[in-house]
Amino acid sequence: MPRYAIKVEYNGAPFAGWQRQSDQPSVQGAIETALAKLEPRAHTIAAAGRTDAGVHATGQVAHCDMAGDWSPFRLSEALNWHLKPQPVAITACSLVADDWHARFSAVERRYMFRLVSRRAPLVHDAGLAWHIRHDLDPIAMQAGADRLIGRHDFTTFRSTACQSASPVKSLERLNVRREGQHVIVEAAALSFLHHQVRSMVGCLVAVGLGRWTAHDLQAALDAADRCALAENAPPEGLYFVRAIYP
Amino acid sequence: MPRYAIKVEYNGAPFAGWQRQSDQPSVQGAIETALAKLEPRAHTIAAAGRTDAGVHATGQVAHCDMAGDWSPFRLSEALNWHLKPQPVAITACSLVADDWHARFSAVERRYMFRLVSRRAPLVHDAGLAWHIRHDLDPIAMQAGADRLIGRHDFTTFRSTACQSASPVKSLERLNVRREGQHVIVEAAALSFLHHQVRSMVGCLVAVGLGRWTAHDLQAALDAADRCALAENAPPEGLYFVRAIYP
Repeated sequence: MPRYAIKVEYNGAPFAGWQRQSDQPSVQGAIETALAKLEPRAHTIAAAGRTDAGVHATGQVAHCDMAGDWSPFRLSEALNWHLKPQPVAITACSLVADDWHARFSAVERRYMFRLVSRRAPLVHDAGLAWHIRHDLDPIAMQAGADRLIGRHDFTTFRSTACQSASPVKSLERLNVRREGQHVIVEAAALSFLHHQVRSMVGCLVAVGLGRWTAHDLQAALDAADRCALAENAPPEGLYFVRAIYP
Repeated sequence: MPRYAIKVEYNGAPFAGWQRQSDQPSVQGAIETALAKLEPRAHTIAAAGRTDAGVHATGQVAHCDMAGDWSPFRLSEALNWHLKPQPVAITACSLVADDWHARFSAVERRYMFRLVSRRAPLVHDAGLAWHIRHDLDPIAMQAGADRLIGRHDFTTFRSTACQSASPVKSLERLNVRREGQHVIVEAAALSFLHHQVRSMVGCLVAVGLGRWTAHDLQAALDAADRCALAENAPPEGLYFVRAIYP
């Protein structure tokens, strides 16, 4: 069966997350239902990042196996047709090798977290960013972020529901930049623990607000204790943006 | 009575436009209703740009007269409180001279039009941009735009409902640039005719798609005839971004 890689954009708000659930809408379920309209049978697709409830994507990557010989263009057009009116779109599609795997072949995952720092309520960014009503200091946030880069025990930044075998992960990059009233945090790693990006961002915001110093963040990391966390950032600011393959 | 200038951000989708209507929601009506919560009486505010139904703003400017001595901070906070949950936010507020007028003192108005050129349906940009399913050539679009800059009879680009005394306007700037899959058109002038930006963008898209040449656009301008228009762009891509005052 030919295997296809698909690039997926979605708004996470109406979904209980990427992963298929028996009783709630999911992004995986939405795409598998669309696939079943093209080839009626049970479909199971895999994704680079199994995003949580409410988390968005601009460049999620998944793969699916088809019985028919679909041209990538026709497959993506047909899927988009059947995905309507849900906020999920296939933005690219290509034929890949039979042993290519969206999850296991990925060598890096990239997330973006969008913050808006201003007093006024959000309008165009409502539901698409974390609204911080006070000033953020992106320089201080970057200094804090630098403490997290590298190989560490990230237990502090790990959900108690995390199923990863080990809390030790290598964080490749964690960049903070300001764009007008937006503060953008970009994170890259081979893989992340459950809630890791949101937990790191929650602590970076504590630093950006002046509640924490970079030293406090270091101490939270060193504690390797979930109770040392400042705050978990809400899902609506988080985007899965890219998966890298060899 | 102290006069206050307010900067307003809004999503135009739920509104019949800026201007107050007896039977439909409007941005002006929403703000005047919020003002009446602070000082119970009839309020009438004026804006730099009376945007159409469905048109958004990131930096609309209006002014209001208050009986009380409000600090600009308290006034904007109180308005935002009463505007909730409507997609309208006061993002800045300042005390101005009694004869300062949001509409008549403005010496330049700036609009932005957001286009997204891609096959896949819009997700994060849904309702916030005009979706063009084909490739756009921003270089050709800029060449077309250059024909429109300057002082012209813009009858072709003017709604039949336009109440302006003359169809002759001076277009200061009309810039087209690509940002990934987005094409952004920025327009600046002392004032615009009704539907002028949307009509110019509709014709620029005809050029960007290769249906029209820059010469065709010139001919449409020269015709000074509404029937020579290629297409009126939809309101959801248009944003009032800024008003300039001396």
